[in-house]
Amino acid sequence: MKTIAENINVMSKSIGAAMKDRDPGPIQEMAKRCTEAGADLLDINLGPARKDGPEMMEWVVNTVQEVSDLQLCLDTSNHEAMEAGIQACKKPPLLNSFSAQPDKMEDILPLAAKYDCEIIGLTMSTHIPIDTDERIAIAYEIVAAANELGIPNERIWIDPIILPIGVEVGQAHAVAVQEVLKMLPEVFDPPVQTTCGLSNTSNGAPDELRSAIDRAFLPMLAACGLTSAIVNACDPEMMRTVRLINALRNESLYSVSDAELK
Amino acid sequence: MKTIAENINVMSKSIGAAMKDRDPGPIQEMAKRCTEAGADLLDINLGPARKDGPEMMEWVVNTVQEVSDLQLCLDTSNHEAMEAGIQACKKPPLLNSFSAQPDKMEDILPLAAKYDCEIIGLTMSTHIPIDTDERIAIAYEIVAAANELGIPNERIWIDPIILPIGVEVGQAHAVAVQEVLKMLPEVFDPPVQTTCGLSNTSNGAPDELRSAIDRAFLPMLAACGLTSAIVNACDPEMMRTVRLINALRNESLYSVSDAELK
Repeated sequence: MKTIAENINVMSKSIGAAMKDRDPGPIQEMAKRCTEAGADLLDINLGPARKDGPEMMEWVVNTVQEVSDLQLCLDTSNHEAMEAGIQACKKPPLLNSFSAQPDKMEDILPLAAKYDCEIIGLTMSTHIPIDTDERIAIAYEIVAAANELGIPNERIWIDPIILPIGVEVGQAHAVAVQEVLKMLPEVFDPPVQTTCGLSNTSNGAPDELRSAIDRAFLPMLAACGLTSAIVNACDPEMMRTVRLINALRNESLYSVSDAELK
Repeated sequence: MKTIAENINVMSKSIGAAMKDRDPGPIQEMAKRCTEAGADLLDINLGPARKDGPEMMEWVVNTVQEVSDLQLCLDTSNHEAMEAGIQACKKPPLLNSFSAQPDKMEDILPLAAKYDCEIIGLTMSTHIPIDTDERIAIAYEIVAAANELGIPNERIWIDPIILPIGVEVGQAHAVAVQEVLKMLPEVFDPPVQTTCGLSNTSNGAPDELRSAIDRAFLPMLAACGLTSAIVNACDPEMMRTVRLINALRNESLYSVSDAELK
């Protein structure tokens, strides 16, 4: 399975300040760290990016690309910032993300089609259904709308949406996510990709317990067929878990170093 | 999922010596420790038990039952020791284990039928097939033979056999085990129980890396439907992983203490 590093995020105190001050140091250091840790893609999360969105996104993309060749995953609700980011990318990025609401789909899908981007579609519209079949029905809507614009299944990453385990009905949602992942390969041919915001599992738990919760869930999702996850690439135990998952799915040749903390 | 503590084992230096010397201290201490750690059953592994087998098994069972009310899982290839252990058990034990060879089945199944015991059947005959369908075919043989003696599916625990990830074709076997677990609920109605010797996954790896390997695999197996595992109950990170699995399968109500090391 692939990993998308969640770490270049405006919500992070040091990264957010560096973005605002256009200080490349902390951002490039983080990009290098995630790349060396074995991430397959780097998420660049600018949030709403209301102020200077396009200019900031272009600057961050260029700043990251100076130190890493990894594919980028662009994460902002600012349409102009998204397009500026795509244009700055050396290779077509993954666009993160949109729900199955008409205005959200009209915002992202034409951009993805125009620039040959991959996309992350969330199995939610105005609300997140607890029901597995409803999540699958929404995935249908997303895939149909994307296909209509010429975006093939292989470039669509469905995110069945993880809620914090500690919130009400969070556990039922955790089961639904597993069920959706098991069903998706039977529903779409060729299959779609899948991903999830893994850290959301432990959102609200004490900081020192979060990694353990996420590391228990990721192998479960992997066994259900998950093809990628957005993870904390700065957590060596998390990246070790990913290496071991890949060995235990027989997707990479196991060596004892896969079990080591790096 | 249930856990069977692997720790009362003649192969352990301190436990083996205590068994030989009929010294209850270390055995009772271990039984209490595993019980407090949250194990659901205690395995009592005497191995071949060639010398004083029946008398030793009876003594160990009684010694453990003085400090723990948990169901016991008796593990020996000595038929007389197995029967002596069953007779000493306050509640019918789980018998661990037999392969689908005529002499092995004739050794265990009549005992299980006579004393209302649960049984662990390994999906192997003279060799361990790498093929998923062959493993399922062997499970059929085991279940048919057990049913014939009046042992219902619910009391049959199928073990699809984990091999060390580091041996040749170990990774292919790891995938086969996951596939078998996914198929079993479709094959048997009512469903059989399942279990595995989890620590075998990391057999041969450096000691300090073994827990991480096992803790990556167990959630994968759990997501495939595994209903129990034989684990190192003295590993707090392992028992935390089990608690989190049960919460993430929505089989127990999550509380933040599930994520704590105890």
